[in-house]
Amino acid sequence: MATDAEQACFEAGIKFGSLYHQFAGTPVSPRSIESLERAMEEAIENQPYCVSVSVDIHEERVAAAIDHENGYTELTGSLMDVEMRIEYEERVVRTRMEMEGGYPLMRIVSVE
Amino acid sequence: MATDAEQACFEAGIKFGSLYHQFAGTPVSPRSIESLERAMEEAIENQPYCVSVSVDIHEERVAAAIDHENGYTELTGSLMDVEMRIEYEERVVRTRMEMEGGYPLMRIVSVE
Amino acid sequence: MATDAEQACFEAGIKFGSLYHQFAGTPVSPRSIESLERAMEEAIENQPYCVSVSVDIHEERVAAAIDHENGYTELTGSLMDVEMRIEYEERVVRTRMEMEGGYPLMRIVSVE
Amino acid sequence: MATDAEQACFEAGIKFGSLYHQFAGTPVSPRSIESLERAMEEAIENQPYCVSVSVDIHEERVAAAIDHENGYTELTGSLMDVEMRIEYEERVVRTRMEMEGGYPLMRIVSVE
Repeated sequence: MATDAEQACFEAGIKFGSLYHQFAGTPVSPRSIESLERAMEEAIENQPYCVSVSVDIHEERVAAAIDHENGYTELTGSLMDVEMRIEYEERVVRTRMEMEGGYPLMRIVSVE
Repeated sequence: MATDAEQACFEAGIKFGSLYHQFAGTPVSPRSIESLERAMEEAIENQPYCVSVSVDIHEERVAAAIDHENGYTELTGSLMDVEMRIEYEERVVRTRMEMEGGYPLMRIVSVE
Repeated sequence: MATDAEQACFEAGIKFGSLYHQFAGTPVSPRSIESLERAMEEAIENQPYCVSVSVDIHEERVAAAIDHENGYTELTGSLMDVEMRIEYEERVVRTRMEMEGGYPLMRIVSVE
Repeated sequence: MATDAEQACFEAGIKFGSLYHQFAGTPVSPRSIESLERAMEEAIENQPYCVSVSVDIHEERVAAAIDHENGYTELTGSLMDVEMRIEYEERVVRTRMEMEGGYPLMRIVSVE
């Protein structure tokens, strides 16, 4: 009923929603950025049709978000960029989450 | 770049991934099913382009999943059905999550 | 090995960490506050030794946190107060989470 | 009001509830176990008074839990053991989560 391209976009959306709501709220500090990036990438790459995930948590944003004596903050969309590549049948969808107008926006980069 | 229908499917996927990974793991018992259903529906309906969400957590499955003396279990996809309606520009996407082959499958019902 | 009072405090801490990290990140708007409060309370009250949970998400803080056109924000500790009563054997522990110095602090109110 | 030992136990409980409800539901497969273990440990070690966290996700249990064609499962307490060391003032609390009677039990190992 849906086209392969529409299915591919649906699958891409699932991965974004999953990544965001599974990991938002995780305690993060500059020293734990790298392990969290890897875990997020490898966890979501387990999902069907998900070929690759790249998570980039910005150290300077994490440092700026630490507003109390404990030395950590909680992961939110404003601290990271995410890129994903989804393949469904013959279609390839690339997606990206980045800040736009002060708000993390998930968007389709290309459908091929 | 993407068509309106592809965007609508992408948005529909985001909502499903969000709902699932935000609420999976929540302690649930027969007496707390109803409040959890309402909260899941209203939380995800806040998201852009999401017109309606219907969550049905099956009481008999919750009861069957309670395998210890504490009287509750944790929410998983196998305990519930979910339906959503997403509208993006002129396109309407209906989606559904239900058990198929012992595994909760998220799928597009229609793109109109 | 641990005293009943120490066990009671351990159980109280589990409930707080559970509540916070299960529900942080949930989309919330003024109209969905009430269903989310009820679901959080009833979900955590399922856990062992947890007699009562009271969640108060402040509407004016939610409204102030909505910083984009979509009309919702994500739940964080800064938007809510939480009170719990834990009973373990003969001991009663009351706990509270509230803002202190700009940071949500979970603390023991009394051990009786 | 609470003793240092009680505070230490409260803090220990918070870390357990946080770890469990932040990461339960994460997609996991044998190949992504290691990155998830590291991320869980380092994330929770950010929290106050938490000196060390050790997470051991059992590969054979993950493999056994994969019940569908996609090759992954979702993290639950039954797949892992966790140990933590909490220090509050002069008190040291060691805690452990492991399976007991088919159910993951969080418990205090020692208060010193």
